[in-house]
Amino acid sequence: MNTHFSAAMPRVVTLTTDFGTGSGYVAEMKGRLLHAETPFTLVDISHDVPPHDIRSAAWLVGRACPAFPVGTLHIVVVDPGVGTSRRLLWARVGEQEFLCPDNGVLACTLAGAPLVSARVLDAGAHASATFHGRDVIAPAAVRLLDGENPESLGPLLADLTSLAWPTPQDTTQGLVGEVIHVDAFGNLITNLPAAALPRLERAGRIRVGGHDVGTIVKTYGDTTAGTPVVLVGSQGFLEVAVVEGRADTRFSAHVGTPVAIP
Amino acid sequence: MNTHFSAAMPRVVTLTTDFGTGSGYVAEMKGRLLHAETPFTLVDISHDVPPHDIRSAAWLVGRACPAFPVGTLHIVVVDPGVGTSRRLLWARVGEQEFLCPDNGVLACTLAGAPLVSARVLDAGAHASATFHGRDVIAPAAVRLLDGENPESLGPLLADLTSLAWPTPQDTTQGLVGEVIHVDAFGNLITNLPAAALPRLERAGRIRVGGHDVGTIVKTYGDTTAGTPVVLVGSQGFLEVAVVEGRADTRFSAHVGTPVAIP
Amino acid sequence: MNTHFSAAMPRVVTLTTDFGTGSGYVAEMKGRLLHAETPFTLVDISHDVPPHDIRSAAWLVGRACPAFPVGTLHIVVVDPGVGTSRRLLWARVGEQEFLCPDNGVLACTLAGAPLVSARVLDAGAHASATFHGRDVIAPAAVRLLDGENPESLGPLLADLTSLAWPTPQDTTQGLVGEVIHVDAFGNLITNLPAAALPRLERAGRIRVGGHDVGTIVKTYGDTTAGTPVVLVGSQGFLEVAVVEGRADTRFSAHVGTPVAIP
Repeated sequence: MNTHFSAAMPRVVTLTTDFGTGSGYVAEMKGRLLHAETPFTLVDISHDVPPHDIRSAAWLVGRACPAFPVGTLHIVVVDPGVGTSRRLLWARVGEQEFLCPDNGVLACTLAGAPLVSARVLDAGAHASATFHGRDVIAPAAVRLLDGENPESLGPLLADLTSLAWPTPQDTTQGLVGEVIHVDAFGNLITNLPAAALPRLERAGRIRVGGHDVGTIVKTYGDTTAGTPVVLVGSQGFLEVAVVEGRADTRFSAHVGTPVAIP
Repeated sequence: MNTHFSAAMPRVVTLTTDFGTGSGYVAEMKGRLLHAETPFTLVDISHDVPPHDIRSAAWLVGRACPAFPVGTLHIVVVDPGVGTSRRLLWARVGEQEFLCPDNGVLACTLAGAPLVSARVLDAGAHASATFHGRDVIAPAAVRLLDGENPESLGPLLADLTSLAWPTPQDTTQGLVGEVIHVDAFGNLITNLPAAALPRLERAGRIRVGGHDVGTIVKTYGDTTAGTPVVLVGSQGFLEVAVVEGRADTRFSAHVGTPVAIP
Repeated sequence: MNTHFSAAMPRVVTLTTDFGTGSGYVAEMKGRLLHAETPFTLVDISHDVPPHDIRSAAWLVGRACPAFPVGTLHIVVVDPGVGTSRRLLWARVGEQEFLCPDNGVLACTLAGAPLVSARVLDAGAHASATFHGRDVIAPAAVRLLDGENPESLGPLLADLTSLAWPTPQDTTQGLVGEVIHVDAFGNLITNLPAAALPRLERAGRIRVGGHDVGTIVKTYGDTTAGTPVVLVGSQGFLEVAVVEGRADTRFSAHVGTPVAIP
């Protein structure tokens, strides 16, 4: 099970962490990665995942990674269990690869593409107790970039740790989901899929934090500034927004706030 | 009207958005861009433009882009009108190229270099209604990077949408401008050009938010820490600063605060 | 004294400034750097150094830079003295190179590797008075990237400006150090070296801001969430943390807070 990528373009490596933008920890990881002898393209996805928030990281990685080319290597280090017995893993999911702790951070990714193979990384004797991103994951990435076979990284891993993930519930109150993500515009991205749109259109409104939003649009610009709207967002989930405003402050909503189609 | 760049260096592509640093939207755009088959150098200018703030983006792009090499492709996505009838455009300004909404975001750029050519992008049938940066602009960039002629992107655009821009006014109160930008140091960059320096020297002071600043210097280090000063900033505009301090908090000033040379 | 690097990989150039992430000043510097005719790999270390904070920058650079490959060129622009008589310098420290103001910002780097050579940059006649990062340092970097010998940058510099740096003191109160850095997790990194661990184990506790922390661990996951712990951090210094919590808020601690082993 070897990897064959086009030699035309350097391979893409992405980084997602909760270290904070501008953190020296990120720089240390990049410095180690740049010891690879094969050129590659390094892309930051985010270093501002809320500290220790595996669920936020899982959502971000699940949404952002599929946009990258075949063969991209995604490194995800949100690792509250560093230094404990939790495993570090390499995984091929669909046509991309991942290096990350085995803590559920691939949950959303695996909802969209099949797990092809996974291996447990050998932490080695020289790793620090607190920074396996630098001491175990970055060296493993360098080995992969320089052409080593994933088999050499460690033994096969049969099943990955899963993650409790909120799924919409059909109740007497209607179809009840929740806010999964608040973006930089204050838009509320929910876990209600685009497939719920017909039901929303029949109900004529969505309920978020005690408020009803009844203006269903295709895009933000379909109505006037300041209007609360509900629409199918760019990633295929229902989204509550305020045109040129902020839905999070308007509705005092945050990750976890219930959202219901009555 | 084809483009001819040196083949020695990979082409530079910059990104400026209001998506927020670490946003999954930025990652999705980068992932799509990296489907180009021609190597390029990707540089983030900013993803922290205030949401929907076309004027801030116009200022930033106008100041930062000219420093880049000939042939740089600048992608700017600050796009409150996404999904409406506002056009998306490709433009060559001076010796650089831009992909952006036609909403005035090139206003400051066009004040410094001539518009050579512009074309309307065809949005295509498969674009989402809310994320044209990912679905229209990134694919257009990939086509340009891979050698397609800009003619293939869409029909010529005769005139770009303009932007109301505050210009200094000569009044009975003196030459009155305003704060255009507050940088990370709290320095107040105004729209009063360096050419107003002789007038400032005659007046002996500048007035900002009800305070007079009378120490005219060449650089911050010319006087002692804590002193309010006025100087010609690195981009050719008058700037009010507090040496090793913050002028924005000292003078309760922000973008839009009036600044006058009496 | 010429430089000889492997031609296999593009040279790495890092950037550390206090300009703010997304600042137009950073973009201007990158634009100028990209005028080099030799491909290189550009990596941001941080643009969020607190404004004018030479000590924070010195710490960050000292910790992060050694992780990078031989021949990396590190550009550091935290420069409250811009435009004054302070010198700008090129330095080779160990097997890496630096371009920065001569204001002590290399203090921590020089504690770990020898100064091989240093030169004063000639500021030239065309530099602005307020932005030498763009006008002097970036052009010097381009000359180095394109193969010029460092000798051409300016005359030898015999001794660099030093920086007052807090070192632990052995007092009647015990071994007294202080918090040097607070990371994104709220962990308190101190200036007490790992060599102080036996003393800590004998004392059985460390004192920070009036609180005793007595749980000595190897890694965060060794005990339950919410527990204050002390451990040797990934960079070889004692660190006070709260497992999956924030030590900075728990102990009202910040850079400069005293930390003592009684």
